[in-house]
Parts: sequence; C-alpha cells; structure tokens
Amino acid sequence: MTNRFQFNINATDGRARTGVITTPKGDIRTPAFMPVGTAATVKAMLPESVLSTGADILLGNTYHLMLRPGAERIHNLGGLHKFMNWKGPILTDSGGYQVMSLTDLRKLTEEGVKFKSHIDGSVHNLTPEYSMKIQQLLGSDIVMSFDECTPFPATDKQAKSSMDLSMRWAQRSRDAFGDRPGYALFGIQQGSTFKDMREESAEKLTNIGFDGYAVGGLAVGEGQNLMFEVLNYAPNQLPQDKPRYLMGVGKPDDIVGAVQRGIDMFDCVLPSRSGRTGQALTRMGPINLRNARHRDDPRPLDSTCECPCCKNYSRAYLHHVHRAGEIISSMLLTWHNLHYYQVLMEGLRGAIASNSLDTFVSNFHNVRKEGDIEPI
Amino acid sequence: MTNRFQFNINATDGRARTGVITTPKGDIRTPAFMPVGTAATVKAMLPESVLSTGADILLGNTYHLMLRPGAERIHNLGGLHKFMNWKGPILTDSGGYQVMSLTDLRKLTEEGVKFKSHIDGSVHNLTPEYSMKIQQLLGSDIVMSFDECTPFPATDKQAKSSMDLSMRWAQRSRDAFGDRPGYALFGIQQGSTFKDMREESAEKLTNIGFDGYAVGGLAVGEGQNLMFEVLNYAPNQLPQDKPRYLMGVGKPDDIVGAVQRGIDMFDCVLPSRSGRTGQALTRMGPINLRNARHRDDPRPLDSTCECPCCKNYSRAYLHHVHRAGEIISSMLLTWHNLHYYQVLMEGLRGAIASNSLDTFVSNFHNVRKEGDIEPI
Repeated sequence: MTNRFQFNINATDGRARTGVITTPKGDIRTPAFMPVGTAATVKAMLPESVLSTGADILLGNTYHLMLRPGAERIHNLGGLHKFMNWKGPILTDSGGYQVMSLTDLRKLTEEGVKFKSHIDGSVHNLTPEYSMKIQQLLGSDIVMSFDECTPFPATDKQAKSSMDLSMRWAQRSRDAFGDRPGYALFGIQQGSTFKDMREESAEKLTNIGFDGYAVGGLAVGEGQNLMFEVLNYAPNQLPQDKPRYLMGVGKPDDIVGAVQRGIDMFDCVLPSRSGRTGQALTRMGPINLRNARHRDDPRPLDSTCECPCCKNYSRAYLHHVHRAGEIISSMLLTWHNLHYYQVLMEGLRGAIASNSLDTFVSNFHNVRKEGDIEPI
Repeated sequence: MTNRFQFNINATDGRARTGVITTPKGDIRTPAFMPVGTAATVKAMLPESVLSTGADILLGNTYHLMLRPGAERIHNLGGLHKFMNWKGPILTDSGGYQVMSLTDLRKLTEEGVKFKSHIDGSVHNLTPEYSMKIQQLLGSDIVMSFDECTPFPATDKQAKSSMDLSMRWAQRSRDAFGDRPGYALFGIQQGSTFKDMREESAEKLTNIGFDGYAVGGLAVGEGQNLMFEVLNYAPNQLPQDKPRYLMGVGKPDDIVGAVQRGIDMFDCVLPSRSGRTGQALTRMGPINLRNARHRDDPRPLDSTCECPCCKNYSRAYLHHVHRAGEIISSMLLTWHNLHYYQVLMEGLRGAIASNSLDTFVSNFHNVRKEGDIEPI
C-alpha cells in the first residue's frame, strides 16, 4: 500500500467519473458511499459485516465522538480504527453541522461555536483549530475542514456572510492541519443556491488548496430539484482532479442524479436509520415491513439480492421481528440497505467505466416504476 | 444422518454423563446448553453466529410463537426452522410456564389454561392437546409435554395436587403426540421439593414412556442450595438411558452443579438477557460494563476467550457502546456470553470424558474466586 493520499480517475461518462482514492489504509472506489458510524459503530452492524457489503470507508461524527467517549480517550486507546475495529479508511466530519443542528444553546462567533452538550450539558468551544485537533486525535484519514453549513433558505446577504466565514475557517483549518502525509484535508464549498457565490467559494478553496472538496450546504431542505440545479454547476467549479464529496446525501435517486453531475463521494444515515424503522430500500423502491400485507409473504425482499437478509429470510419473518421489536430486525434490514447501496454504487462505477451511464440510469428508474413499490 | 431420535451416553464421571442426542436435524452433544430463541430469534444474534458459538440446538417458546406470529402461519411458511433460518434441532416448551407467569387473567381447569394474550388481550385456551398441535405445527424436534410448573413454595398438598394434574396432562400429551418418528416428546417431573413426590412423578412418567425427561418446578425462587438438594435425588429417579433436562437453568455455577448431579440439558435466557443489560459472563465471574472503571480499559473482557467480542474489542469500547445505547453492545455481549456458556459446556463434556470432572469443577470455582470479579 502507498503511504500517500491520491485520487486517480479511470473513466468518465458525461460529467460522471469513476476512479480510486488511494490511502495508506486502503483504496476507496469512486463513486463511493460511506456508511455512517456516528458513535464509533455503524448502528446494528459489526464492522466485518459492513465491509462485506462492499464499503471501502466509514464516516465518523466528530461532534458525537468528542462528547462521548472523548477524542483524547480514543487516542489513548489507539485511535478510532482500533477502538471500533475498522481497518479501512475513516472520514470524519468537522463537528460543525451537528453542533448547529443538535444543540440548543450555542453561540457562533468569528472564533468558532460555543455550545452545550446534548448528553450532559457540559460547555464546549469548537473552533477550526480544535476540530482539526480532535480529528487528528481520532486518527481520521480524511479530515473535513470546519465550516458553517449555511441554513436553507438564506438571503444572498446571509449566504455571503456565512460563506465568507466558512472560507476564513477553511484557511484556519488548512493552517492548523499542517502537513500530514497519508492524511487528507477536504475543503467545503458553500454559497447556498447562488451560482456566483458557489464560484467564489470554489475559487477561495482552490487557492487555499485541499486534497478533496465537498459540496456543502445541500440536502438541508431545499428538495431534490433545487439540489440538482446547484449540482448542475457546483461540482464543475471545483478542481477536476480531486475527489468531490456531497455531504449527507442521500436517497438512491439523489445519489444517481448527483453521480451524473460529477460527485464522487456520499454519506447518509438513511440506509441504517431506515433499517431500524422497518424500511427496506430496494432496487424496486422502499418496502415498509411494518405493513400487515407482508405477514404471510414467503418472498425475500428482493430475490436478486445476495445479502444475508434476502438469502435467508422471508418478508413474513422481517415483518414479524420488526413488529415484535426484535434487534435482529434492525440488524437484517440495515445489512440489506447498506448492501443495496453498495450494489448501486458498484453498478454506477461499472456503467461509467463502460460508458453506459444513461442506460443504467434509465433502467434504475424503470425498475422503480414497475416494481414492488410501497409508500414510505 | 439418522431419521431417528436417540441418546447415547459415551462416558460417565460420578453421576455426570456425556454423550450425544442424535436427531434427523443434527447431533446434540451433552451436557448441552440451549440458547433461547423466544420469538423466533436469539435476541441480538444471527443464527449463524449462534451456531459459531458451538450451540447444537435452540429453544423456542410456544407461548410467544402461538400469539405472534402464530403457529399456523409459521407452519404455512415452512416451519420454525426455515422461518428463523436455523437448520439444527429445536426444542419447544409447552407454553404452560409462560401462560402462568406472563398473563394476568388466566383460569386453570382440568381441561387446561384459559388466558388473555399479553400482546393484544385475545383469549386463548391452552390444553395438552393444543400444545402438542402447536409444537407440531412449529416443527419442533423436541416437544415438551404440557404441565403445570408448581409454584414455590408449595405445601405438600398443593404440590401433590399440582403434580397429579401434570401427570394426567403428561398422559394426554403422550396420547395427543402420537407416533412421530424422528421427533421426541419429553415428560416433565414435578413434586416440588418433596423427594417421595418426585419419585411418584418419575414413576408415572416412566410408565407413560417418554424420549427424555425434564426436572420441572426448579429455578423458581427456591435458591441454589435447595435446588441442588432436589437434584441430589431427582435425576436419579428418572431413567438412566434417556436425556435429562433442567428447564430454565441457569447461572454458570448452577449448570456446573447440575451436571455433577446428572443433568444433560439446559436452557436459560441469562446469557442473552445479561448481554443486553451490559453484563458479561466470564470464567472470572460477571463483569458489569456499565461501570465507569472500564472507561479507559484497553483489555478485552477475557484475554483467553476466542469470541469476536474478546478478539476485537476493549472493555473501554464495550463500556462506551453500552452507555451510548448502541445495538452493537447487545450484539457483542450476547455473543460473548453465549460463547462462554458453550466453552463451559465443552469443558464439562471433556472433563467427564476424561474422568476429571472434580478437577475441572475445582478449577472453575478457583478462577472465579481469584479473578476479575465485580458485583452484578
């Protein structure tokens, strides 16, 4: 394995790209979906099971981990990889998004964000410098710069002021991160739904120089149409030769549309969270196992799916264990959902490599139209 | 594989025996511990994980399964084995114990027990004949006869009346079960803590004739001393050449003492239930992961244990995920506990086979005295 972080694009199809991000902890095939391991666990999954779904990289949440069990503690125990038994690469967010969405009492200043823990009410100060320190203590392979995720909707004045702050924090993040061979720092583009502001943000980030770039401030309530509108230009404003990451996205059709628009990396709690609420995500669309119609159904969720849930269990069983509140319901549905996401990513990578993305996407939508669709 | 149910004793050491119960679905090495799969799942475990701990057979609860999802439904879906993806043998209880302990409104008559479901309040009538029918619909390999578990304490008059009823129900169970090659019916000895009554019960059961015999009415609050007192004579009153099953037992030292007294089979929710409440059962004694002393402890639960929990995770991690309410805490601790129980059974079998049970038992108690013991 290399001890460097690098990105090689192997093929393109329209604006879509497929390639490999090389890290000392292993390769990441792109477009990549990163399962979310919020509190040092992908909920209801063992790490070896997550690996078996085809995941190359996990995401960890800086906010949650700094509060519990604490970054110093994880560092003293050998780092996040060892702590949670995941040998592959880990990306950590900066903590900024969770601070703004999960805490009640918070104060945003030029310096950073002061907030109260949602767990024990303790007061913390998250700054670009401290976020870099925490992510380093965790041993994160891909570190996200500290930013403010501009709320939606925002006036152009609000968006500009927020973007400017994030760009100053991006520079401070870059300075604090320093030079750490084998580890990557990603910048985060802001600018809400304003094309010129996105362009300005991209330029500023590119001037600072990052190992990858995220399109931030999307998937915050603007809806798929508006998100795709922004993605029609935003990824192209970022450097072509670096990975582009769309944070917190999304539903399968969000991912497909974003890949078509040049995104390389995704993360989302949807497949794991849905699994815990009894919802299976399949190539035919979502299936709500809570529904009584599944009570006597001997069919698997998807007869073409090779995951342990579909190979071994009927919809009737999944309905039963979900209704009975059994943990195995979360285990099996999360496994299926994460497996489906990885199969989707593999399909997207193959289609780009063979220059047949349009056909793949048409088929993706047709199967969902024809299939075993149930309302969420 | 044979299509018959049979029991061969390979070695004895004092009153302890080791052998193999042969069934069409696979062999059961005795003394055997059966993990409990109440609602068609061993909570927080996949069946292949349960198998990997060394379990040869699972227990299913007739009461829970008849109410949800229903025995007819499971039958129509191909039986309990297929439903829950467990290919090995399954023993089901008769439902009687849960009816008496889990329902509020119930009426016991000569015919059986009328009760209200704790799930939806529906009214059911459980009789020996119906219990046999349900267990057959489930596809149970070892069927338990329907009895009344005599409450403790009981006067000799109460115990006699209850035992007599259970013996009449045992005959009705035997008649209703009929002749089903490859499937076994076990009778259940009652008689509370009265030696002569236990003897009378054993004689009646032996006259009816069963494929195995359970010592019933223990582990119901009488304490280990009194339980061992009964086990000093009760197993010996039962046929030597048939498996003897102590229902609902127990803690590791209960099992060791019962094996010494001639018991071949056990079931208990303790290893799985403890796992879900943050308690690890180890050869050194119980370890309560909730305790803050584990916060920074890089050691595994037991450095000699080969289970995935001990091979891959620190006490600090287990403390963290338990405190954070993460499902993986239940998954890992249940896995460890079930693994430990199977290692214990393997040790007991080996010790009996090599005629060194006394040494094994001394060592078992010494390690617990010296070890990493914490109060529960």
